[in-house]
Amino acid sequence: MLVVMQSNATEEQVRAVCERIETLGLKAHAIPGSGRTAIGITGNSGAVDLGVLESMSGVIECIPVTKPYKLVSRDVKEEDTVVRIPTPSGDVLVGGEHIAMVAGPCAVETEEQCFAIASQLKATGIRLFRGGAYKPRTSPYSFQGLGLSGLKILSMVRKQYGFGIVTEAIDNESLDLVEEYADVIQIGARNMQNFSLLKRAGRAKLPVLLKRGMSATLDEFLMAAEYILSEGNYNVMLCERGVRTFSDFSRNTLDLAVVPAVKKRSHLPILVDPSHGTGKRHKVLPLSRAAVAVGADGLLVEVHHQPEKALSDGIQSIVPDEYAELLDEVRQISTVLKRKVN
Amino acid sequence: MLVVMQSNATEEQVRAVCERIETLGLKAHAIPGSGRTAIGITGNSGAVDLGVLESMSGVIECIPVTKPYKLVSRDVKEEDTVVRIPTPSGDVLVGGEHIAMVAGPCAVETEEQCFAIASQLKATGIRLFRGGAYKPRTSPYSFQGLGLSGLKILSMVRKQYGFGIVTEAIDNESLDLVEEYADVIQIGARNMQNFSLLKRAGRAKLPVLLKRGMSATLDEFLMAAEYILSEGNYNVMLCERGVRTFSDFSRNTLDLAVVPAVKKRSHLPILVDPSHGTGKRHKVLPLSRAAVAVGADGLLVEVHHQPEKALSDGIQSIVPDEYAELLDEVRQISTVLKRKVN
Amino acid sequence: MLVVMQSNATEEQVRAVCERIETLGLKAHAIPGSGRTAIGITGNSGAVDLGVLESMSGVIECIPVTKPYKLVSRDVKEEDTVVRIPTPSGDVLVGGEHIAMVAGPCAVETEEQCFAIASQLKATGIRLFRGGAYKPRTSPYSFQGLGLSGLKILSMVRKQYGFGIVTEAIDNESLDLVEEYADVIQIGARNMQNFSLLKRAGRAKLPVLLKRGMSATLDEFLMAAEYILSEGNYNVMLCERGVRTFSDFSRNTLDLAVVPAVKKRSHLPILVDPSHGTGKRHKVLPLSRAAVAVGADGLLVEVHHQPEKALSDGIQSIVPDEYAELLDEVRQISTVLKRKVN
Amino acid sequence: MLVVMQSNATEEQVRAVCERIETLGLKAHAIPGSGRTAIGITGNSGAVDLGVLESMSGVIECIPVTKPYKLVSRDVKEEDTVVRIPTPSGDVLVGGEHIAMVAGPCAVETEEQCFAIASQLKATGIRLFRGGAYKPRTSPYSFQGLGLSGLKILSMVRKQYGFGIVTEAIDNESLDLVEEYADVIQIGARNMQNFSLLKRAGRAKLPVLLKRGMSATLDEFLMAAEYILSEGNYNVMLCERGVRTFSDFSRNTLDLAVVPAVKKRSHLPILVDPSHGTGKRHKVLPLSRAAVAVGADGLLVEVHHQPEKALSDGIQSIVPDEYAELLDEVRQISTVLKRKVN
Repeated sequence: MLVVMQSNATEEQVRAVCERIETLGLKAHAIPGSGRTAIGITGNSGAVDLGVLESMSGVIECIPVTKPYKLVSRDVKEEDTVVRIPTPSGDVLVGGEHIAMVAGPCAVETEEQCFAIASQLKATGIRLFRGGAYKPRTSPYSFQGLGLSGLKILSMVRKQYGFGIVTEAIDNESLDLVEEYADVIQIGARNMQNFSLLKRAGRAKLPVLLKRGMSATLDEFLMAAEYILSEGNYNVMLCERGVRTFSDFSRNTLDLAVVPAVKKRSHLPILVDPSHGTGKRHKVLPLSRAAVAVGADGLLVEVHHQPEKALSDGIQSIVPDEYAELLDEVRQISTVLKRKVN
Repeated sequence: MLVVMQSNATEEQVRAVCERIETLGLKAHAIPGSGRTAIGITGNSGAVDLGVLESMSGVIECIPVTKPYKLVSRDVKEEDTVVRIPTPSGDVLVGGEHIAMVAGPCAVETEEQCFAIASQLKATGIRLFRGGAYKPRTSPYSFQGLGLSGLKILSMVRKQYGFGIVTEAIDNESLDLVEEYADVIQIGARNMQNFSLLKRAGRAKLPVLLKRGMSATLDEFLMAAEYILSEGNYNVMLCERGVRTFSDFSRNTLDLAVVPAVKKRSHLPILVDPSHGTGKRHKVLPLSRAAVAVGADGLLVEVHHQPEKALSDGIQSIVPDEYAELLDEVRQISTVLKRKVN
Repeated sequence: MLVVMQSNATEEQVRAVCERIETLGLKAHAIPGSGRTAIGITGNSGAVDLGVLESMSGVIECIPVTKPYKLVSRDVKEEDTVVRIPTPSGDVLVGGEHIAMVAGPCAVETEEQCFAIASQLKATGIRLFRGGAYKPRTSPYSFQGLGLSGLKILSMVRKQYGFGIVTEAIDNESLDLVEEYADVIQIGARNMQNFSLLKRAGRAKLPVLLKRGMSATLDEFLMAAEYILSEGNYNVMLCERGVRTFSDFSRNTLDLAVVPAVKKRSHLPILVDPSHGTGKRHKVLPLSRAAVAVGADGLLVEVHHQPEKALSDGIQSIVPDEYAELLDEVRQISTVLKRKVN
Repeated sequence: MLVVMQSNATEEQVRAVCERIETLGLKAHAIPGSGRTAIGITGNSGAVDLGVLESMSGVIECIPVTKPYKLVSRDVKEEDTVVRIPTPSGDVLVGGEHIAMVAGPCAVETEEQCFAIASQLKATGIRLFRGGAYKPRTSPYSFQGLGLSGLKILSMVRKQYGFGIVTEAIDNESLDLVEEYADVIQIGARNMQNFSLLKRAGRAKLPVLLKRGMSATLDEFLMAAEYILSEGNYNVMLCERGVRTFSDFSRNTLDLAVVPAVKKRSHLPILVDPSHGTGKRHKVLPLSRAAVAVGADGLLVEVHHQPEKALSDGIQSIVPDEYAELLDEVRQISTVLKRKVN
């Protein structure tokens, strides 16, 4: 924490602030500048809320300095984390040189739908299948997912095609079931700061895919992951899915710069979801290419064999043929970066 | 839904879109304009996701027209909802001509702290006391609240001073307990789209105070309330607490225009939280005045007898004396609007 | 500037950063903390761009500390600036205890229109009249204002009713003319960082009303004012008119918290424009009350006698009768704050 | 324009709105739905401001339907515009299959600096050189550029190395000079809605590079270009350079999805500036790859031989060696898209 004093702050005011800091059991370091004095504080483990110094006389503002996350930080672990996802057809690796492709429908609708999509995706060679059994929907009147019977359909897809299954949990109850039926627990953007759910995910035995909240700062995103790691689950994959801005032409603004920013601060892998990230079908292909080019460790793409009949998010789903084309271009770009798509 | 065609769309393209719409069991209304044709769609109850029309040839975009909320809408109920909160010292009314003042510490820390603050607030004549027993915190290493023992302290405050108690629930488990010990269930901004929790609150027997999410649009905010009403609980109070923007000088941007906007669309009362809404102590007083002036049905203000020792959010808490001054000014402004502060 | 080192930064890395700082003619102050080391820098007058230190090894980030503005700051002048606007009917004061009401049509359309509105506004007792002769419009095909003949109409209104005239300049050429015909030069939001125009306004002999840019931070807003003061014109009034956010229900989000924020940092008066700030007629009255309640030094309101026929912004204009009601409520609220509306 | 009525609007209210529309010389089309009635309006050339209908009784809201831009639209010209930039070493093409690389220092500082950077860039094979002689700076106390003598240095670089010169104009005066000394006139983000400058650029004989404003919607961006085309200059290149959001880890949020969005609506080429778009050196390379992968028609990159000594924006400048690596990767990615980098 750094306390910045007004340029006309008196020596007494500076001294009073320093004394208050020392009273709190911390150490104050006055740094007299040509224009104004700043006071550095050390020794704070995070227990004391120093913002209150801002209301002392002569103080302009308090600037936090130390980053609050620990376990997710490169300070603690320098090399990239490579998450290993066990599937019926062998382990899938995510991170390091490995780029993971996850595809499937937004929502599990019927057995026929899932198998139709899965069989076409199987042909492309990808190994992770996504589909929502529990759907967080803005409206209580929209399709809310099939729940347990959706998980059972995913489990059959798993058995039939050897896919690893990625699916979302929305509360502690559904997380128990996802843990039983799937291979990766997805935490959605709206639940990124559902701390009760994050703690439960931290005690789960499966890897977790954590999506960035709609208006989460980078620090908040990493702190949400820290909740999971702090409970003992180190297999966390982050996922950028677009943030909310003033922008008028797409549902969200895909923030690809967060990929190198995460990689500078954290050892965790980060994927990109260009389907939610853009909300429009014709943007999925170009932004998939861009995501891999920027250094993402994987893509989460919505694929539906009949988008115009989808019960949710048909507008952003592409068909399996388009996905095959996407995969082809993404593979070419990954070689430029000397990485492998699995 | 309105489908806008390109200005050079052919008659065939227009016809194809109309046919697709009729296939879905809906009715298409082509509106030929001087520049381009638009196609209105009627008969959609919300089950069909029409966005997919956007990928048909000749189409520029699809514009949603009907608002998805029902029970919260003034279309359904024209007059203002006045929520009645039973407390040991009689009912407190919120909405209509009644402005409700809710005050207390951010977090319940100790019995001494709560009683010290409560006794000073009692003297001001207000009747609703707030304090968090479950604290959603960005960091897993920050104080997370006293939990059940915090609720018990609030319950003692209730008994001693006759306050109605407003406190937050963060998951289904804590909601069960809040329902047992408090008078109003608060749902925090980070849980505004925790739909599992909203449904549980909709089955609770207490009134609910629902805070706007950090980047929630007005439609999303009202739809979150709709989740609660759709489960049978009609005693919902909304609360604006600031939204996330590029702004650099305060933690959030308090969006006071949402108050008249809510009142135009919905019959539910809406309060304002100027403490979280600004994140800075010196802004709480001016923005409290502004909130009442804009037409808010109440204020939620953080008050602490020793802000510099608070375990959370000390920086935005004011002291009881400042609160008394706030209350005095707010009362004067409420008379300009011909309303009563309770 | 504060340079934050990684927690595992070596002593050598810290030393290298300090040496680089000293090479630049500045002074480095290493502050070893329990977790990590930070390095304070003093002696920088602003000429050196220190951000580059961020690319040195072991550095996490560089945090700017000193605020760049000077003349607009309370550090330089503690008491509120009261701007004096000479008008045919005597000086109008803005700031301190004086709240100034500015009203009139968005655009000057005809002599009849201006006189019709002016005569009705004259009856309310207000003393400053606004109307645009040069209109910055998003589309090249929209009405761009009457230009010089608009200024001449405003000048006749001035003579007839004794109003002070507030009108916008959009480039150096129009500023020359505004300086000749009006009493206050308005710089619009879109030109807040048109530095060439700001410098010209700084050499003008009239007071300047500077609107906040659509996405201007507080620092940028104050720095834009600093451009004007640094050229010698100290008669600057700021004006909040709403910022751009994700919000879906109003054209802009009126950021009323900027009023106390400006007053903490600067001695300049700040007005609020609730017409552009909300973009909707039914929000103008409540937000006008709120603006005065939060401490604004004046209001800029669009008034049109026939809003449905207005050539621009009819949707946000109120009629003279509504304005009289607004003025009545605003006057009552101003007495709560012990201020005078002129 | 579409007028949406309340679900309980009476027939009379619907009729009143229709009559008002007809009075304005337009045609009303009532579309009765199961839930509510909407009214389509045709025949409006843009002269009438229909927003006022929103204040009629029974109306919920007015939704604009037709896009206001014309000349920049694909409706008017289906095929991609390829801008031809004449340079001493032959024409450079931008758009279609041609990707243009523009590089150079943020600001022209000295003859030595420009020649040092230019000679190293010449070796990479690129053909367009950038450098600012007029610098819009947030602070009046920052380096404002060399002005005319900066243009003369650029002109010498042009002669020596055969580069086409891209440089910014900030007002009508500087535009006259840029037109004389350079090959492409750059309009900066802060001036995107300086309509007076846009009109002047529309009468210039050189191609224009128009940067997106910090919070410009897609419509506003295209309308700004429309200003230039409407004055007769059809050689316009757009440029995304990051928008302002809540994001905390980079100066701006680079909005790469705007590239396919522009290409869907407009025939104009669009470049990307990853230097301003991220504000951080270590993000320039990954985001350059991503920009080409998403389909951009060129890159504008800040290169400085001694970033730590740069008078502006050193923190986001890369060195010539890094640029050569960037160029190599970008060339490989462009072949995946079957395009050519020049």
